[in-house]
Amino acid sequence: MTGMTDDFSDSSNSSVTIALAQIDTCVGDLDGNAAKVLSYSRRAAGQGADVVLFPEMTLTGYPIEDLAFRATFRQAAWDKASTLAEDLGKEGLGDLYVVVGTVAADAHGLPRNRLIVLHQGVVEASYDKHFLPNYGVFDEFRIFSPGDLPLVMTIKGRKIGFAICEDIWQEGGPVAQLAQKGIDLLATINGSPYEEGKGHIRTDLCARRAREVTAPVIYLNQVGGQDDLVFDGASFVVNPDGGVEERSPQFVEDLSFWTLPAVAGTDSDQAGRSTLIPLMDSDEEVYRACVLGLKDYMAKNGFKGVVLGLSGGIDSALVATMAADAIGGSNVWGLSMPSMYSSSGSKDDAADLAANMGAHYEIQPIEPLFQAFQKQLDLQGIAAENLQARMRGVLVMAYSNSHGLLALATGNKSELACGYSTIYGDAVGGYAPIKDVLKTKVWQLAKWRNSYALGKGQVPPIPVNSILKPPSAELRPGQKDSDSLPEYELLDQVLASYIEKAHGRADLLKDGFDPETVDTVMRLVDKAEWKRRQYPLGPKVTALAFGRDRRLPVTSAFRE
Amino acid sequence: MTGMTDDFSDSSNSSVTIALAQIDTCVGDLDGNAAKVLSYSRRAAGQGADVVLFPEMTLTGYPIEDLAFRATFRQAAWDKASTLAEDLGKEGLGDLYVVVGTVAADAHGLPRNRLIVLHQGVVEASYDKHFLPNYGVFDEFRIFSPGDLPLVMTIKGRKIGFAICEDIWQEGGPVAQLAQKGIDLLATINGSPYEEGKGHIRTDLCARRAREVTAPVIYLNQVGGQDDLVFDGASFVVNPDGGVEERSPQFVEDLSFWTLPAVAGTDSDQAGRSTLIPLMDSDEEVYRACVLGLKDYMAKNGFKGVVLGLSGGIDSALVATMAADAIGGSNVWGLSMPSMYSSSGSKDDAADLAANMGAHYEIQPIEPLFQAFQKQLDLQGIAAENLQARMRGVLVMAYSNSHGLLALATGNKSELACGYSTIYGDAVGGYAPIKDVLKTKVWQLAKWRNSYALGKGQVPPIPVNSILKPPSAELRPGQKDSDSLPEYELLDQVLASYIEKAHGRADLLKDGFDPETVDTVMRLVDKAEWKRRQYPLGPKVTALAFGRDRRLPVTSAFRE
Repeated sequence: MTGMTDDFSDSSNSSVTIALAQIDTCVGDLDGNAAKVLSYSRRAAGQGADVVLFPEMTLTGYPIEDLAFRATFRQAAWDKASTLAEDLGKEGLGDLYVVVGTVAADAHGLPRNRLIVLHQGVVEASYDKHFLPNYGVFDEFRIFSPGDLPLVMTIKGRKIGFAICEDIWQEGGPVAQLAQKGIDLLATINGSPYEEGKGHIRTDLCARRAREVTAPVIYLNQVGGQDDLVFDGASFVVNPDGGVEERSPQFVEDLSFWTLPAVAGTDSDQAGRSTLIPLMDSDEEVYRACVLGLKDYMAKNGFKGVVLGLSGGIDSALVATMAADAIGGSNVWGLSMPSMYSSSGSKDDAADLAANMGAHYEIQPIEPLFQAFQKQLDLQGIAAENLQARMRGVLVMAYSNSHGLLALATGNKSELACGYSTIYGDAVGGYAPIKDVLKTKVWQLAKWRNSYALGKGQVPPIPVNSILKPPSAELRPGQKDSDSLPEYELLDQVLASYIEKAHGRADLLKDGFDPETVDTVMRLVDKAEWKRRQYPLGPKVTALAFGRDRRLPVTSAFRE
Repeated sequence: MTGMTDDFSDSSNSSVTIALAQIDTCVGDLDGNAAKVLSYSRRAAGQGADVVLFPEMTLTGYPIEDLAFRATFRQAAWDKASTLAEDLGKEGLGDLYVVVGTVAADAHGLPRNRLIVLHQGVVEASYDKHFLPNYGVFDEFRIFSPGDLPLVMTIKGRKIGFAICEDIWQEGGPVAQLAQKGIDLLATINGSPYEEGKGHIRTDLCARRAREVTAPVIYLNQVGGQDDLVFDGASFVVNPDGGVEERSPQFVEDLSFWTLPAVAGTDSDQAGRSTLIPLMDSDEEVYRACVLGLKDYMAKNGFKGVVLGLSGGIDSALVATMAADAIGGSNVWGLSMPSMYSSSGSKDDAADLAANMGAHYEIQPIEPLFQAFQKQLDLQGIAAENLQARMRGVLVMAYSNSHGLLALATGNKSELACGYSTIYGDAVGGYAPIKDVLKTKVWQLAKWRNSYALGKGQVPPIPVNSILKPPSAELRPGQKDSDSLPEYELLDQVLASYIEKAHGRADLLKDGFDPETVDTVMRLVDKAEWKRRQYPLGPKVTALAFGRDRRLPVTSAFRE
């Protein structure tokens, strides 16, 4: 009965120690996620925390997409929350306020995105997310029904308000309600996907909300890869002056502590918190996001190794290095698949790379395979070039199927955006680690990774040749990417405007690009997008078909 | 100034003739769609119509997905609406009320799904859709902002209320507003995708709305294929007694007429409308939906021919027949790609099929190709089976690339649902005509198509052997589908419950299926869904990546 004890003590001046449990959950893995909450709660209590915060939808993983519609899943999640509360109580952790997210249902049986507070062996309080994002990667309005009540809990005499992720990105709603009620702290639990440079945007936003509620704001974020989303963690605490008082590291699980000081400012431990880890620079951030995305995708889906083609070029070199960083070089199978047009330099670079990371390295020439097809088909031009790429796709899948390896596609965002790849050829793979990384960024990441190795006194993994030589698909003699595409320095600027900033033609001209380049790039991107989205197209003739109708997460550990 | 003239005449007793212009639009093709509106308006006026109704989002095509966010597209659509109104006036069609759908923007620049009435050379009235569906294939709440005002127009003294599609599927909203105001007719424009048996559901719904507004309801639907949606048309008029007074045909463009009778019942021409075309039976409906989907996909994307593998089995036979019905047999390339395990019966059946439809027929044995790979790889088991399927995938794509043909995947819903296919093998293709058709339905459609031919005095296209023989992938000696899957009669029932009715495990047991079958099928489906959705997975690291972020239609004729 901690609450009652608090009421009798002079608790209005108490400090409250909060643990920020920045954990990596797996969608659908109710048992695993609950076990992790228990273990972090144990550690938090052991280090004197009064409250421990976990990310949005902790128990279910996030985002659960259409799993929310499965009544059996919702029931299992709810049962798990009750059991977890009991288990915490049995372990003597009943005094700790454990704040987790989960899925629940409203009075009409519609799913809700819910925060619950476990305390003294029961689910003591709950809060339903008000604002349901319905843009970009988010489809929550489609899935959940919105809550409309705020939640303020008095803990050790201090008023703590709660909110979930999007609630703080919109004006009005729960933050406005809490500002009116008056609180001592706003604790938010989040599932905010990584985007380059997003850390600063979140800090600025929370500083604004801290001023609005005239109290510090805790931003507790999820960490880890879930399908094509990567959560970067980087949880923090910001006060109404905009000062960041605490920050958890990026891209790793973490348990940090922060203390809401007593009102008079006594017994605060903020004094020792003057040096916060700065946010990483852009190259390190993106590199680590890609590695974490791959590592978690493999771990959550039970893959032990990967196979990919090593051409000697920069894309496959970078992907192989990321894979080695994610799962160790000995779990990487690199295939050299030279054609009659492959330079010997390329083959040497591929071999050097594999040796640098301790990867398996095998050579499978495609010429005999290509010739067997050409004997029947006698293809010319692009069709013959595609045939070479498809021989490689078949080889990669043969290794994938016979050794149980995840096939990695090595395409970068620039070439995928422009359709400069072969479907069922180099595009083959179950996961594409750099599919959202522009070519000029690929070079930067490679250089960053080599510098990082040098800084640690290690051999730089990526051969300098792979970084320096002009990019080529090597599908015909003397071929260069620049035969078909604008130079990457220019192309990537146009792509960044057209794709990442969603600028239209008029905007692109205003950005200063010449009309010929703009029209070339727009035509390439639109055509490539059409091709990319074409498969598996087919008519829908029944109530529930595949694809657009069922939007389940790719990775989910839930089984009925 | 027709409106004024009407006010002076004793028009409260007038009949109003409505033309139901059930047309096939193309997303983004503003010029083409507007030209079609002009041409149908000409015909409607020529046959005495006072009003002509076109489908939801006529000018833009439907659904436009994220094209709605492109300001240049919205501006172009709005300019096109004004020009169209002027063109109608210049042609002397100003007296005709032309009701079309388009995209517009609200005061904050957010997109709206709008109905506009073109009259006397201008956009005379407009109505914004209230209810924005956000489930199944629909993402409208994500894209559009909702309207909140009703629209009633007095035409020839009669009060006509308007609504758009989802507006009549929800309680309250515009229909309730119109019921309160009192109207003589509710005219609805729709973009309602085909689902097996949906025609009857629409009729029942509209009869209920007709009772609610105590007036007839016109349901004008789009027709045609747009990516993976097929719109079936089947527009109709229903009166408050539930009587269907008019029905347009299914799966074809059409211009029908219906007259709102004068109040006293004079000058009604309903007397002659006693015989309506009945809705098609399920087999014909699904067959025609598949053919129309393919035909429109090709026409709207500029494809003239298709290539597919002809195995002699029922799936490829049915797909080839659908393709021949869509674009003519002479535009179909059938490849026989026998392996060492192909029976001679299969090869004969494939040749017979091609001959029956006048298709191109070529034989490309895969054994030499397979052996070239095996010399390097020596694969066993499933990996070797997949290798055969992938040799065929490469061959199909070689024809696609060198002749500019659309590759058709021939997989049916049962095998795709259970993962009984090879990625980059038989799953290769830009369009999969029967991907939403269960295997038992495939047999029914084949039989229906042969019977239909017999009824017309034609040669049944599909060889009887292809229908009768036990299904086999022929990837090893004596292989049968039933070695790996439950018998299709049972499997399809479980799939229909699990996928189409979204039943969970407990529901499936209640449906009467045995636990072993249920667990087998659920495991297969969940694993296959994971594989199907795996590609092209990769981490998102920037603000706008591919795939989930941009949701443009695959088929769009819009160019900035």
